[in-house]
Order: sequence, then structure tokens, then C-alpha cells
Amino acid sequence: MTIGLFTGSFDPMTNGHLDVIARGAKLFDKLYVGVFQNDSKQPLFSTAERKILFERLMTDFDNVEVIVHASDLTVNVAQQLGVTALLRSVRNAADLTYESEMLYYNAQMTGVETVLLMARPELQHVNSTRIKELAHYGADISRWVPDMVRVELEKKFEKK
Amino acid sequence: MTIGLFTGSFDPMTNGHLDVIARGAKLFDKLYVGVFQNDSKQPLFSTAERKILFERLMTDFDNVEVIVHASDLTVNVAQQLGVTALLRSVRNAADLTYESEMLYYNAQMTGVETVLLMARPELQHVNSTRIKELAHYGADISRWVPDMVRVELEKKFEKK
Amino acid sequence: MTIGLFTGSFDPMTNGHLDVIARGAKLFDKLYVGVFQNDSKQPLFSTAERKILFERLMTDFDNVEVIVHASDLTVNVAQQLGVTALLRSVRNAADLTYESEMLYYNAQMTGVETVLLMARPELQHVNSTRIKELAHYGADISRWVPDMVRVELEKKFEKK
Amino acid sequence: MTIGLFTGSFDPMTNGHLDVIARGAKLFDKLYVGVFQNDSKQPLFSTAERKILFERLMTDFDNVEVIVHASDLTVNVAQQLGVTALLRSVRNAADLTYESEMLYYNAQMTGVETVLLMARPELQHVNSTRIKELAHYGADISRWVPDMVRVELEKKFEKK
Amino acid sequence: MTIGLFTGSFDPMTNGHLDVIARGAKLFDKLYVGVFQNDSKQPLFSTAERKILFERLMTDFDNVEVIVHASDLTVNVAQQLGVTALLRSVRNAADLTYESEMLYYNAQMTGVETVLLMARPELQHVNSTRIKELAHYGADISRWVPDMVRVELEKKFEKK
Amino acid sequence: MTIGLFTGSFDPMTNGHLDVIARGAKLFDKLYVGVFQNDSKQPLFSTAERKILFERLMTDFDNVEVIVHASDLTVNVAQQLGVTALLRSVRNAADLTYESEMLYYNAQMTGVETVLLMARPELQHVNSTRIKELAHYGADISRWVPDMVRVELEKKFEKK
Repeated sequence: MTIGLFTGSFDPMTNGHLDVIARGAKLFDKLYVGVFQNDSKQPLFSTAERKILFERLMTDFDNVEVIVHASDLTVNVAQQLGVTALLRSVRNAADLTYESEMLYYNAQMTGVETVLLMARPELQHVNSTRIKELAHYGADISRWVPDMVRVELEKKFEKK
Repeated sequence: MTIGLFTGSFDPMTNGHLDVIARGAKLFDKLYVGVFQNDSKQPLFSTAERKILFERLMTDFDNVEVIVHASDLTVNVAQQLGVTALLRSVRNAADLTYESEMLYYNAQMTGVETVLLMARPELQHVNSTRIKELAHYGADISRWVPDMVRVELEKKFEKK
Repeated sequence: MTIGLFTGSFDPMTNGHLDVIARGAKLFDKLYVGVFQNDSKQPLFSTAERKILFERLMTDFDNVEVIVHASDLTVNVAQQLGVTALLRSVRNAADLTYESEMLYYNAQMTGVETVLLMARPELQHVNSTRIKELAHYGADISRWVPDMVRVELEKKFEKK
Repeated sequence: MTIGLFTGSFDPMTNGHLDVIARGAKLFDKLYVGVFQNDSKQPLFSTAERKILFERLMTDFDNVEVIVHASDLTVNVAQQLGVTALLRSVRNAADLTYESEMLYYNAQMTGVETVLLMARPELQHVNSTRIKELAHYGADISRWVPDMVRVELEKKFEKK
Repeated sequence: MTIGLFTGSFDPMTNGHLDVIARGAKLFDKLYVGVFQNDSKQPLFSTAERKILFERLMTDFDNVEVIVHASDLTVNVAQQLGVTALLRSVRNAADLTYESEMLYYNAQMTGVETVLLMARPELQHVNSTRIKELAHYGADISRWVPDMVRVELEKKFEKK
Repeated sequence: MTIGLFTGSFDPMTNGHLDVIARGAKLFDKLYVGVFQNDSKQPLFSTAERKILFERLMTDFDNVEVIVHASDLTVNVAQQLGVTALLRSVRNAADLTYESEMLYYNAQMTGVETVLLMARPELQHVNSTRIKELAHYGADISRWVPDMVRVELEKKFEKK
């Protein structure tokens, strides 16, 4: 049985994240989606909000489980869960440089594998930071996030 | 059940190839290793020689099967075998540019997935072309190829 | 009045080329499309065939003129035509490295400007070489070339 | 009639900026230079100072107009001005990665074109941040900024 | 007589730094190692602590001298010391982009040469920031830093 | 005593090559310039012609010696000469990828060091292949090669 782990801040989750999860769910018998609880950065969505949103989006995936993991090295989380491989998405050469550093440390410390999926061309520029900036300025973001996320994002920026 | 396909010229197979296969064999229930029969280039080892060498090297892997595929699009071979994902190794940004083009066409034409594994730092420069050049000049190549391959390479260059 | 020049082999022209031309036609008062007559490489389509195909595809563009230019430095052609800027498409970092070299020589020799347009994500992997390879293996290429080009490509490969 | 828009912080403007503007002024019938009023970062020169400096530097350009635009998405500003294309300078692969993301969002949201000009080799390393650091340490910066800007920069750092 | 200068924060020094110094010590008659005293960032080790650690690590190198230099342009320090060349380590394309900018300014301002050494594959991902993060989470870092540094790092994180 | 080796085809030598040699001559006590005798490619200038040209260009350099080395691994040549380090020029990320592969093999096989110098911005696009192409089309190449080389290049293309 193969187990994957896809971690991120997901603040908020985008169609890019969902595409990677859908693809990863076909590769692994079980796929954990780990919402990283980052203490230092002030997120737009709380960890609890992100977990709830994610679970509602994952209802169609039998083998995907959303977890929250406290601030720790990803490989430590991976070892506790017994994962076969970390699942990572790469969009460009800069991503690859970063991932190759992570792969090195993970392999040296624990031997945990890392599987990379290229982002699809039409999703390669979709990232949470840009989506939040666009939502902040009132742009239509419905192409890049699930409808459920769009509604929550608009609520956040209405309040502000 | 997940099925992977790792194709290449493997003229000859290196420790870099073997590392990717060993890692891929843990990700997929079954992994095909496809020796590409390239009509246009004159290989050092015939397709038959490469298949025999590979099978001897793969005896410890229960779920790996070596096949030879005639000149065709890789996705066509993948569809005939019912593979879940192509397995590819990336060493640097130039590789990623190439793989992202292949991924695009494969996804557009058939929806076959592509899984990328980063080459380990200590194997990232190991490639068949350089190994053949080094063997041609009589350098010690034992660090980079299995012993069985080293012996066959030395035979090839002794004859010349 | 601004004049642009977009040169290439166009063997054959793809939807990627047509997109750049459509975008360039809005930037320049007049846009020349230069079909480069490469003596050394054996093209699939003759220069005459490419010119005719291109002219039929360009009928909707009032300010685009298709020309054939013999083997010469592009800047020499540009100077004869009195162009304001060369129009070039870039898809990735490797393209940029190449274009920055060309820009340097052109600027040093003649001062001709070079305008770069990024290929759209959904067209960034579309290139003539890959399209010909796909057509050779009988793949459906209708997503990537105008219908007129698809028909001619299929004729070429039927004959073979 | 074609209209271009070249935006930036210009804190302060360098010979690199001026070169791009001079080149852009030949491509477009009208070129707006948009001084971005960034609320979050504390600039060295106020928006008003930058606008005045820029206007004095632009007196020789008939078709260039300096504007200040409040914090907003660049494409929103572009639409209000009816621009044909954004004008952007790229110096290296990292710039291209950033610009290709911007191009994607701009094209998806409004269809506004983006025109890239490669920085000339001798200007490719000239940027405001480095110039300010050099001026801070009392280095001679006269090669990289117009004399008018050098004088103002030296005043700023004398006061400190 | 050739004199080199290798500067950095070295907060703390890693096996990557030591490898570059050992290699640089063979290229230059004399090699200065400059511990940069950065006023703005709060280091983990004080400048004094870093200097002492470094001197203990450098006892086997006859031609290496550890210096502390106050916040200033590196080329100013280089000129005061009469150095032939700055010694820099590059690990990847992003590093090269940064170094090529520095080289440009240094050459333009003072003509000081810059010598680049590629990091070895097995050390290319070793950097102080990651080592501190790993030590913070209690990971075994003995592969990447000298033992003397490991002990001091563990003390720092025990106190916290 | 430090010994450097700078090898290449130098068909013909450019101002870019001469700049690297002039810089390398200051780093090493002795610098060998190795003209590589490539059996497979048909050069424009014979090995003998290149050696003579180079020696005439090197008369001002006391510590530079031009040698011709037959087809062999560069590290073998380096070991015979007792060199401290290979001297290499890098212009961009693609060069670095190539050099990092070479460095790996050289370090693994013999421990010979490799020193990289960045090409200066104004020389980074100067290469023999492009210069020959320009000379072939009758362009003025006097900016990029020594006058002696320009004269010989023009003779070559007049004959053709």
C-alpha cells in the first residue's frame, strides 16, 4: 500500500492545488493533504477554516484525508504517518531548485521519497498569494478557485 | 493497481537509471522499463544486448518488467500497456523544460500522467553519453555503472 | 508609422505562430511575416508552399504581408524593409538566452529594436518540430495547427 | 493609435529605466510612464518628487506622459487609459518567470497585451535598490543614473 | 603574490563553507575569510563567536586569515586589503544571476576580479539557514557542519 | 606555484577568450592555453593556424603558454601538465549546467579544481560560431575579435 502526503499553507486552496490532489489520488492508495499551521505568518483563513473548506471540497475523493499538522519538519510528519512519498507540484525552474534542496534533506534524514507533478500550463500561474491580491482589488477570481472558496474569499475582503 | 512506465535509450544503463527504477518500483504496483528502439541513431549496444543486460540487473525486482518498444510515440505504448503514469527523471532546469513539453502533449492527447523524480545530487551528472566518452578514453567508470555494464563497456571499446 | 518583422521557418505554421502574428498586428502599423529560406535544412514544405499557405491564413489581416527572404542575416532584411522592430516570441528561459544574444548583435550592428511577446501558457509547447513528429505517428494535431495546415500535413505523411 | 504603459516604483529612475522608455517611445504612438504609489513600502523619494524628476527627464520626449497611479492592479489602470500594451523590461530568466505570470493574469482578465524589451547587456544589472545601496556607501553612481538623479540621491544620503 | 577574499555571514559556518575555503586556499597565496558584521539582521551567533569558531576551524590552514569587517561594500574592504580576487561559491542558476550582478558592479567600480567555485554536488544544498531550521527542530545535523559548530548550535537551541 | 589551463576550440579566438586569458593570467603563476584538436569537426582554421595566431596575440603575456593537445579528456591533459585548476568562462545558466557536470567528473576522477570566471556583460554574447556566421555574411566584426583575427577571417570568407 502506497501513502502520499501533499502539504501546503492552502491559504486558500486553488484549482491548482485541487488538480494536484486529484492527480495524486490516482497515484497513491491513500493521500494525506496536510494543512500546515504556520505560527509566524498571519494567515487570511484560520487553520480550522481551511480544514473545513478542504474537507467539503474532498468529499468525492475516497482515499484523500485532510489533516492539520503543527509547525514541524515535514519529514517528521511523514514518518509518523508512514508515508511512501511526499507529493509536490513544480511550476518552473525556481520551484525545481527549491524542491531539489528539500529532496536532498529528506532523503538524507529519512529516505522519504518525493514525487513531483508538473503543474498544467493553464494552471501554472495560479497561486494563493496572487489570488488574494486579485480578490483584494475586487477582480473576478472564479476561474482559479472553487466556487466555495470564492464565496469565502469575497466575504473576507468585504469585511475589511 | 498502479502501473508505471520508464522509457529511455539505456545505451547503456547507469547507476542513475537504476536508482530511478528502484525508487519507481516502490511507487507503482508494476513498473515497465521500456528500452526504446531508436532507428535513426546507431547505438553502442544493440536493443537485444540492452534488454538482456537489463533483465539480469532487474532480477531482484519482482514488479519490474523490461520491454522493448519499437519506434512510436511513448503515449501510444503507454496506452497499450494501460499505464497509470510515465516515470521520468529530472536533473536540472533544462530537463524540466523538456519534460513540461512532453507532459503537455501526453495530457492533451491521452490524459496519461507523468511522475517526475529528481535525480539524487551524487547521481545528477551521470548519463550514458558521458560514460561512453569516459570509457572510450579508458577512464575508470566503475562509480557510475553496475559492474556488469562496466565489463561490457570495456569489451566494446577494446574491440574498437 | 511603425513596421514589425516576424521571421521563422514556419515548417509548418502553428497556432502558436498565428497567435503571435495576431498580437503583433495590433502593435505595429505594418507587420511583415518573413518565411526564411534555409538552404541547409531539408524542409517538409517548400518555401513556395509555405508562402501560399501563409497568405491564405493571413487574408483577415489588413496590415500583414508575407515575404520570403533568402538566406541572409535577419538584420540585413530588416534594414532593407525599414522595420522599427523585430517581433520575437519567447516561451521559456532557454528562448530568452537565445534572444538576448540576437538582440545584442542586432543592436550593435544596426540599432534595430527587438520586441518580445511571451507565448500564452496554452500555446507555449506548440512548435513545428513536435507537430511534425506527432503527424508522422498519426496523432490528432487539430488542436495545434489551423485546419488548412492539418490537411496539408496529413497529405505529406500519407505520401511517405 | 497604439498606447503603451510602463509602470514601476522608479525610486529613483535609472539609466536602465530611461533606456526602456526611449525604446518604448519609438514603438508606441503614446507612452504613459506610471509612477506606482506603493503604500506599504517607505520610499526614499516621495511620489511627488519622483513625478517632478521624471517630468524634467522626459522633456525631450513628445509622446511620453508621466502619471501617478494609486495602489491598484496595473490592468485596471491600463483599461482606464485605454492602453494597447503594457511595456516591461526583462533582464534574466527570473524576470521572465515573473512577467509570464503577470501576462497570464492580464490576458485572462482583460486581454491587455504585454510587450517585453530585453535590457541591454551594459544596463542589465542596473536597478534602483543596488544604486541606493551604493549611494548610501558613498560610491560613485554617475554611470548608472542621470546627473539630475545623482544630485538628488547624494542630497538624500547627506541628510542621513 | 595573489590574495583572495571570501566573505559571508557564516551564521554558522557549514561544511560547504569549509570546502570552498579549503579549495580557495590552494588557489591563492593568501586567503582572507571575511565575517560580515550585518547590522540589520539579528544573527544567531555574535560576530565575536563566529570569529572564534572560525579561527579554531582554520588552524590547519597556514595561508588563511579570518577577519571581521564592518558594514561596508565588499569592494571597499577588498581594496583596503589589496586583494586580487573575491572568492565566491555558486550552487545553481539563481546564485549565478546574483553573482553576475555583483561582478558587474565590482568590475565597474574597482576592477577587482571575482573567482567562482561551483559547490560540490553533495554539498550544494548545505546552507546556514536550513541548518539552523533543522537544528531548531532537533534534527541530526552532524553531516553538514563541523563537530565544533554542531555542539555550539545545539547549545543555542537548548537555551531557547 | 599555481598553474591554470584554459582549453577551447578557439576557431577563431575572440575578444571574449582574450579577456578570460588576461584575467586568468593574473590569478595563476602560469597559465596554459590549450588549443583542442577536434578530430570530428571540420574547423575553419587549422590547429597550426590557431596556434600561430594565438602566440602572436599572447606576446605581451609572460606567464601564458599556448599548447595544442590531441583529442583526449581534458583532465588527462591537466594531470600531465600538473595544473592546479582548469579555467572556464561562464556566460549564463546553460553554461553553468554544463560546467557543473564537467566539474563533477573532474573532481571525482582526479581532484583537479575548476575556476569559473563570469564573462563581462559586454562580452557575454561573443562566441566563435556567431562571429563566423557574421563574417560569412560580410558583417563588420571588428568589435568582437582582435584585428589580426579579423584580417584572417575575412581572407577565409573571400576565398569561399
